[in-house]
Amino acid sequence: MAEPHEAAPLFRRIAILGIGLIGSSLARVIRREGDLAGELVVADHSEVARATALRLGLGDLVLDDPVQAVTCADLVILAVPVGAIAGVMERIGPSLAPGAILTDVGSTKQSVVRDALPHVPEGVHFIPGHPLAGTEHSGPESGFETLFQGRFCILTPLPGADPDAVERLATLWRRAGAMIETMDPATHDRVLAITSHLPHVIAFTICSTAHELGEDVEQAVLKFAATGFRDFTRIAGSDPVMWRDVFLNNREAILEMMGRFTEDVSALARSIRRGEAGEIEERVRRGRAIRRGVIEAKQA
Amino acid sequence: MAEPHEAAPLFRRIAILGIGLIGSSLARVIRREGDLAGELVVADHSEVARATALRLGLGDLVLDDPVQAVTCADLVILAVPVGAIAGVMERIGPSLAPGAILTDVGSTKQSVVRDALPHVPEGVHFIPGHPLAGTEHSGPESGFETLFQGRFCILTPLPGADPDAVERLATLWRRAGAMIETMDPATHDRVLAITSHLPHVIAFTICSTAHELGEDVEQAVLKFAATGFRDFTRIAGSDPVMWRDVFLNNREAILEMMGRFTEDVSALARSIRRGEAGEIEERVRRGRAIRRGVIEAKQA
Repeated sequence: MAEPHEAAPLFRRIAILGIGLIGSSLARVIRREGDLAGELVVADHSEVARATALRLGLGDLVLDDPVQAVTCADLVILAVPVGAIAGVMERIGPSLAPGAILTDVGSTKQSVVRDALPHVPEGVHFIPGHPLAGTEHSGPESGFETLFQGRFCILTPLPGADPDAVERLATLWRRAGAMIETMDPATHDRVLAITSHLPHVIAFTICSTAHELGEDVEQAVLKFAATGFRDFTRIAGSDPVMWRDVFLNNREAILEMMGRFTEDVSALARSIRRGEAGEIEERVRRGRAIRRGVIEAKQA
Repeated sequence: MAEPHEAAPLFRRIAILGIGLIGSSLARVIRREGDLAGELVVADHSEVARATALRLGLGDLVLDDPVQAVTCADLVILAVPVGAIAGVMERIGPSLAPGAILTDVGSTKQSVVRDALPHVPEGVHFIPGHPLAGTEHSGPESGFETLFQGRFCILTPLPGADPDAVERLATLWRRAGAMIETMDPATHDRVLAITSHLPHVIAFTICSTAHELGEDVEQAVLKFAATGFRDFTRIAGSDPVMWRDVFLNNREAILEMMGRFTEDVSALARSIRRGEAGEIEERVRRGRAIRRGVIEAKQA
């Protein structure tokens, strides 16, 4: 016999559009918890991804058509690369249900607001989001249900957002193990430009610098990577399409951070060329101080 | 009763000058193995380091005076920052025993040859070396006997070096768990400039770039470091004096790599500014290829 007063699920129908690393990890969490969604629909334009999602049982329904997926959904999660947001929103916008919450998981927030907002109908709660979680792997097989455990999820609600809707979305993320932070989209983009996007720019670039030194040096780099280079390659293994889109969609903040960084590299090069021992030591000490800060913030 | 035919140790007397992370780790290996040295002498100009070495039993003798330490030693290991090599060699050169092997553990090799060779007496085998091992910690407490296990140790013997002397030194390192690679000093410095020195330059610099964005952003960087920044801080925690000396003593190769790298960062910035999606994606894909190479080379 069923429980007579079983609690209603947090959402009647959740639709996840894009079943990659983030989308599939969230689907796994929703499957595990049981009471987050009455029904879970996942959609992906890739036939291979859909076949995997079916095999892994990631949704009650696995669809090709995002419009069908969002119909009647009271939570729609855009888990596609940020460059695909505009196209998807153009298609699904008219079919979003009144009162539904619409969110995303993209690494840039101003561009998502720019691309999605024009297509959000009156009465739909649009709350951009960004879980700070990921691995170097991509695709539905690479997801896992503890991906968000102990990680931050940043929400960037727009002015006048409904506090109840924000709280329901925050509840979903907390049940996935995440810690909620709230900020405006511009602050998000600036903070992520220095903490995440610039490090990725650098990691991709140093790999390409090493590559262009020729076959011999590249082999030596691989062999002796443990001396420092290796640390940069972990994040250099990330998804190319996702990162291309991030760079193009947080352009201004990233270019500012790249500019500041190259100025600082040039200043250090100048000190090295001129043999300014004190200046060099001072810069190295500053690096140590930040390292200690990261350890104290329990992020190491 | 002692074994009647106990084998002679590999060296009668080993002197380690400088009892930091590398020196103290090697001392621990020599203590553990038992048959590598008849006698182990360690010397350090720091009273604190000597007190620690005494407390930890890192040598049969713990001395202040490097000259006394090297007298009668058939293996002398310079484990001081590369900037201190010239000064130490000036003092100990005249006291090195004929037939002794002299080596070092510094991260630059051409500068060590430049600074040490003029003080090496006839009949002493000078074989520069560099174990590719380290942590973000320094000082005699931070050493451990498995530091060299499975790591490379590069030897850069000069033209005409005695093969028997090279082999005896290689034996010591192999007993410490290291894999021996041999190359000339200039190749070493170029390879290390890209695999190790440039990554350290970048790690120190990005920390200082973040620092200069102001208190608010720095706090956010510490909080959200897991999104990429964190990977760069591990090596940014390294010893300032050691790294200052490396930058100053591998100046040409490091400046060349910094130049190539900043050109590549500028090219990527240009692609981002101009919205060249294909170009950006291509660079990201190259990073992934190198990542796979590092994994295949079992250095990840």
